[in-house]
Amino acid sequence: MSTTMEVGKKLVALCQQNKHMEAVDSLYSPNIVSIEAGGPPGQSPRVDGIAAVKGKADWWFKNHEIHGSKTEGPWPHGDRFIVRHSFDVTPKAGPMTGKRFQMEEAALYTVKDGKIVLEEFFYNMG
Amino acid sequence: MSTTMEVGKKLVALCQQNKHMEAVDSLYSPNIVSIEAGGPPGQSPRVDGIAAVKGKADWWFKNHEIHGSKTEGPWPHGDRFIVRHSFDVTPKAGPMTGKRFQMEEAALYTVKDGKIVLEEFFYNMG
Repeated sequence: MSTTMEVGKKLVALCQQNKHMEAVDSLYSPNIVSIEAGGPPGQSPRVDGIAAVKGKADWWFKNHEIHGSKTEGPWPHGDRFIVRHSFDVTPKAGPMTGKRFQMEEAALYTVKDGKIVLEEFFYNMG
Repeated sequence: MSTTMEVGKKLVALCQQNKHMEAVDSLYSPNIVSIEAGGPPGQSPRVDGIAAVKGKADWWFKNHEIHGSKTEGPWPHGDRFIVRHSFDVTPKAGPMTGKRFQMEEAALYTVKDGKIVLEEFFYNMG
């Protein structure tokens, strides 16, 4: 069973290779919970289960042109670790379509039995 | 009362000005709890209360020569925010005396009633 630090290192390595979906497939628990810092009015910032989390990630990567990305960390503490993600993207859909911008966020991951069971994204809602 | 983001911005601004103790004095709750990722064998990673937290910070700043530091963030999520701290230091005491090294950590802060009530440090124990 992988330790928290091992899971964190694998996640960072896969993100640095732009293999985000492979990270989800290999490191996430079927019962993963994903919580955003915020979201559109009326939409829950929380998503439950691997199918919904994969759907959310898949939507994001299909609807953004990614010019560059950076992943730093992991920084561990007990059964949790923090990673910093930066993206330089242009949305292909929604009100920001065609408007290139830079995203900065920190993510807090909780590991149980060698799998990520909770991801929480920290960023400024502006 | 300050919001989570306001507290985070004040903390980052004070750290960037090397006013770490002023940040503790102005932003921390009297009942602050501080938890390290780890510590020496037999020593608790947890410290309770403003006097003990100030004592820990004071000891650290007195026993390290600081060549440079960087603080980035804050990245908020509800009543919590994450900050990244980097230090380039030489210890003045202990087994690492005179050995310059670079520290990288992420810190997770929890805010209640406009004050920081919990700080948790995330870093690799090596």
